[in-house]
Amino acid sequence: MALAKRTIRAQNSESMKVVYTPAHESHAHSHEFEGGRLIAAKDVPDRVSQVLDAIKVRAIGEIVAPQHFGNVPILRVHTADFVHVLEQAWIRWAVKYGFEAREAIPSAWPARGMHPEVLEDIEATLGYYCFDTATPIVAGTWAAARAAADSALTAAQWVMRGDRAAIALCRPPGHHAASDTYGGYCFLNNAAIAAQCFVDQGRRVAMLDVDFHHGNGTQAIFYANPDVLTVSIHGDPRQFYPHFSGFASETGSGRGAGFNLNIVLPVGTAWGAYALALEEALDRIRAFSPDALVVPLGVDTYLDDPAGGFRLQGADYQRMGHLIGKLGLPTVLTLEGGYRLDAVGPAVGDFLTGFENA
Amino acid sequence: MALAKRTIRAQNSESMKVVYTPAHESHAHSHEFEGGRLIAAKDVPDRVSQVLDAIKVRAIGEIVAPQHFGNVPILRVHTADFVHVLEQAWIRWAVKYGFEAREAIPSAWPARGMHPEVLEDIEATLGYYCFDTATPIVAGTWAAARAAADSALTAAQWVMRGDRAAIALCRPPGHHAASDTYGGYCFLNNAAIAAQCFVDQGRRVAMLDVDFHHGNGTQAIFYANPDVLTVSIHGDPRQFYPHFSGFASETGSGRGAGFNLNIVLPVGTAWGAYALALEEALDRIRAFSPDALVVPLGVDTYLDDPAGGFRLQGADYQRMGHLIGKLGLPTVLTLEGGYRLDAVGPAVGDFLTGFENA
Repeated sequence: MALAKRTIRAQNSESMKVVYTPAHESHAHSHEFEGGRLIAAKDVPDRVSQVLDAIKVRAIGEIVAPQHFGNVPILRVHTADFVHVLEQAWIRWAVKYGFEAREAIPSAWPARGMHPEVLEDIEATLGYYCFDTATPIVAGTWAAARAAADSALTAAQWVMRGDRAAIALCRPPGHHAASDTYGGYCFLNNAAIAAQCFVDQGRRVAMLDVDFHHGNGTQAIFYANPDVLTVSIHGDPRQFYPHFSGFASETGSGRGAGFNLNIVLPVGTAWGAYALALEEALDRIRAFSPDALVVPLGVDTYLDDPAGGFRLQGADYQRMGHLIGKLGLPTVLTLEGGYRLDAVGPAVGDFLTGFENA
Repeated sequence: MALAKRTIRAQNSESMKVVYTPAHESHAHSHEFEGGRLIAAKDVPDRVSQVLDAIKVRAIGEIVAPQHFGNVPILRVHTADFVHVLEQAWIRWAVKYGFEAREAIPSAWPARGMHPEVLEDIEATLGYYCFDTATPIVAGTWAAARAAADSALTAAQWVMRGDRAAIALCRPPGHHAASDTYGGYCFLNNAAIAAQCFVDQGRRVAMLDVDFHHGNGTQAIFYANPDVLTVSIHGDPRQFYPHFSGFASETGSGRGAGFNLNIVLPVGTAWGAYALALEEALDRIRAFSPDALVVPLGVDTYLDDPAGGFRLQGADYQRMGHLIGKLGLPTVLTLEGGYRLDAVGPAVGDFLTGFENA
């Protein structure tokens, strides 16, 4: 019954746009460095394939390709120096280490008491802009990151033109990237770039980050901006990445004071406690009364996700999507984390089903 | 002839004390992470063995064991939190990753726009205090670092009691470690801890860092202190580690303004240009008219050193030691870098020969 209903909706001309491009496949690397050793990469292309398949099987939406927006909307969120470094990083790395080079990962960082001045060495440049050893740059990374930003922008454009909602299947994800820092598998903050489009049209935006990890980049980008309410529900940074951001005490600064909400949940959180946190987030968003909603949608909250620590599963994602859909706001969704390859597709599919049926 | 003269001096009761302990051998690790891959460790125990052998063969000095000074003099230079983290790091890492754990190396760092608050996870803790992936902590690291600091303190004590000079064969080295950061193979800043002993007795100290790499930790520790002149001659940070410190524009701050001198030399520098830089450094030290001299003695300035980029060799080190010895100051030397295993012993031996014969 539910399947039949969804199928009908999907054949409707008002079905949700799903922005997808295979460009993400060019961002493929084999390793990340963690725990003192090289381990298998978790952000693999198959993640998005699984989501796309689940969406197709469920006939949830209409698959569309991203349009190309160029660097202008990216530069509304990221600095020109940062974008230039990302554009040039792999070629500079290859010049240093050879064109058969391994993945570009920094090895030195600017610490307290240092005085960064001129960045010529590529390894030092990456250390200045990147905050971990989990986010390698390869030959195709910049093209993939640009395509992910274009996907988010395309979704935003559909919503600005009147669609109720659209989802961008972004990979690489974006919510850890700030105006001039990258990490956590993220290079450009797709969700923030989409949100900024609304802001630039004079609209107020709420962002609800449901990825398992704190959306530190999104928070930082809008930390002093009262026109964007940033809310993130995530695992405790005392135990989990990004470690140095995501505490409840971070509530915004300057004119943005009071417009950032971090809801920190302990390891092992299942739907019961999660739903209470989500209601708190939704209440805050309703009180803000935004014109639009942007949801960085990570499903690494799933039971036994290799990068997570919560215990959501199955129908929980339908419930989550339903509660968020009930806000009734024009909504842009961007794909973020989710590393259990057997779960990422069904979880996103269930979320969208719940959202559409709200 | 020269050898005979040195032998006689070494048999003299006034021969230079050489502080050595095999405790450094417990700080042995196999890898560091650089260029996107794990590479063989460069700071290996054999470095110090080679130096010790060269000193014995040349009969330059009298080998003495370090005394134990406890944490008090270390805490004059490093913060209590930092020392506590170093003490506990390996056991905390082993609890997380198992007692057969790999070397402890961080994988995430606090970036611009983050808000570090509570550090519970050991990997995040290391990222907060360590600024690279080249400085692993293993089970014996803290014991070795303590012994290296004790060695520097023992050398300082001999000089404070009237010896013309003493050298501490420190490993791990120290000059990259600041009050609450470590990296570059360094954990405790042995040279700064020794210098602080003199300062605490009301004496003014000049530090002359001749390691190939900028002594960023030493600079940072004394950056606002006009009683310690810090001078470093090193490879250009635009190309070389530590990348984010060591520029000529860094001249001290507050009351310490004007009491830091960075002399930056290009890749390929040989003795001719080096000697000019050294004379500039010595002139500045003479003008400061210090009561004592501390020399972080790295010999990774040697031709083809795997971590360096200069072209000093052979008798150049005798010349360098001679020029520094001619200052006529009570002098503490601490071993820093030098990674060409066939060169580190002769280079230190030649330096000390030149110094003693000044």
